[in-house]
Amino acid sequence: MTDVRDEGKATAAVSGPEPSDKAPMREALIEAAFQLFLVHGFERTTVDDIVARAGVGRRSFFRYFPSKEDVVFPEHERCLAEMSAFLTTSTAGEPLDVVCDAARLVTRMYAANPEFSVQRYRLTREVPSLRGYELSVVHRYERTLAHYLRQRYAGDHVGALRAEVQAAAVVAAHNNGLRTWLRGGGQGDAAKAVDQSLTFVRQTWGSLGESAESGTAPAPEDDVIVMVAPRSVPMWRVVQKIEKTLGGD
Amino acid sequence: MTDVRDEGKATAAVSGPEPSDKAPMREALIEAAFQLFLVHGFERTTVDDIVARAGVGRRSFFRYFPSKEDVVFPEHERCLAEMSAFLTTSTAGEPLDVVCDAARLVTRMYAANPEFSVQRYRLTREVPSLRGYELSVVHRYERTLAHYLRQRYAGDHVGALRAEVQAAAVVAAHNNGLRTWLRGGGQGDAAKAVDQSLTFVRQTWGSLGESAESGTAPAPEDDVIVMVAPRSVPMWRVVQKIEKTLGGD
Repeated sequence: MTDVRDEGKATAAVSGPEPSDKAPMREALIEAAFQLFLVHGFERTTVDDIVARAGVGRRSFFRYFPSKEDVVFPEHERCLAEMSAFLTTSTAGEPLDVVCDAARLVTRMYAANPEFSVQRYRLTREVPSLRGYELSVVHRYERTLAHYLRQRYAGDHVGALRAEVQAAAVVAAHNNGLRTWLRGGGQGDAAKAVDQSLTFVRQTWGSLGESAESGTAPAPEDDVIVMVAPRSVPMWRVVQKIEKTLGGD
Repeated sequence: MTDVRDEGKATAAVSGPEPSDKAPMREALIEAAFQLFLVHGFERTTVDDIVARAGVGRRSFFRYFPSKEDVVFPEHERCLAEMSAFLTTSTAGEPLDVVCDAARLVTRMYAANPEFSVQRYRLTREVPSLRGYELSVVHRYERTLAHYLRQRYAGDHVGALRAEVQAAAVVAAHNNGLRTWLRGGGQGDAAKAVDQSLTFVRQTWGSLGESAESGTAPAPEDDVIVMVAPRSVPMWRVVQKIEKTLGGD
């Protein structure tokens, strides 16, 4: 992995979440919260400590965040809404590819601020209540993807099953790639790490029907023919079908 | 779906979890808790209410259950331990088939007491804290299966990825089958519902390499030949290989 600074993606000493044009008070609360979490730990930091440091009132905190856990994941609600909007407009294309694209919205959110994402990753691993919160967020992403796939597979007698299994597989692959990037300290290309993992899932159910043995797509010179036929089909029909596929090679 | 009573599996008015030879006080607490949850709801029932009804002291409750949520899922710890023990001794066999067998231990736990399982399913859907608890339990099963697969795929350059994706897929398929059974009121055969869903996953990565188009295994008369070869392989080699596979048919 390369140092992100070489790629011009990181700025020095970023410690809040993605800078944005959103409410400055909200941003100030997030920054204050993280500074306190990192010094005193999540459990020992109270909402009172956070509002005191941010110099705002207690009610301002709860206007933006329902709980202390929410301040740790300030971008997930926005990302979930973005994902739903993206899926609503994505009525064409290979369904599995569409949900992979939707999952990449999550990658982008993490990659927008590597230092914050890595800090949060470490914090989440240490605090059970944050892990619980994260599980519920991941579950919401998975349900959003499964809901989309169920609609696309409507009419298929195993459509709901396929939708749920594929959504779970996409989320697992996405998180595998994202974790690789986070464990590497948020250096290198998050999108590339996630893409490599998603390729495994796309190959598993890909239109080419490749085996899932490899983590990368086959090179053009390794193009494969796949022939599936009932055992009872006579050999001449099998040969005819393969020859037709190969264009008389 | 058939009435379970026809299959001799249910007893009249079962309302506690699986009868067992375990501590009677623990069983009494579970039964008292569920009676109260069903009448007053989970949130409005306190631990004090439960111990009063069971006729035991407050400390007895916490000897068996760390929290009120735990009394709703009294068998998962045992089932997780059983799953780990099963996987530890399962060093041979197709890894994916082994984890499907491990997942069936969960089915068996639910199927051992249909009425209790259905009551809990309805309760869990209504109470957010129970849904959170259930998510964490499901996550532990998934991690247990992924851990096993990672060991079995050690040395494979995408072994960890494959392990995590397959574990997620098995859990999603298992839960799809289990939910079908629970929504049907716990009537019919839970094992059969789960097997149908798991078949989809086993076909997806099965040794036969069938397509994942069907939710059921092909009947013997539909036995298929699957031929995968680089496009550059000459036709005579393709024919030779198919003929060898078919035994000179």
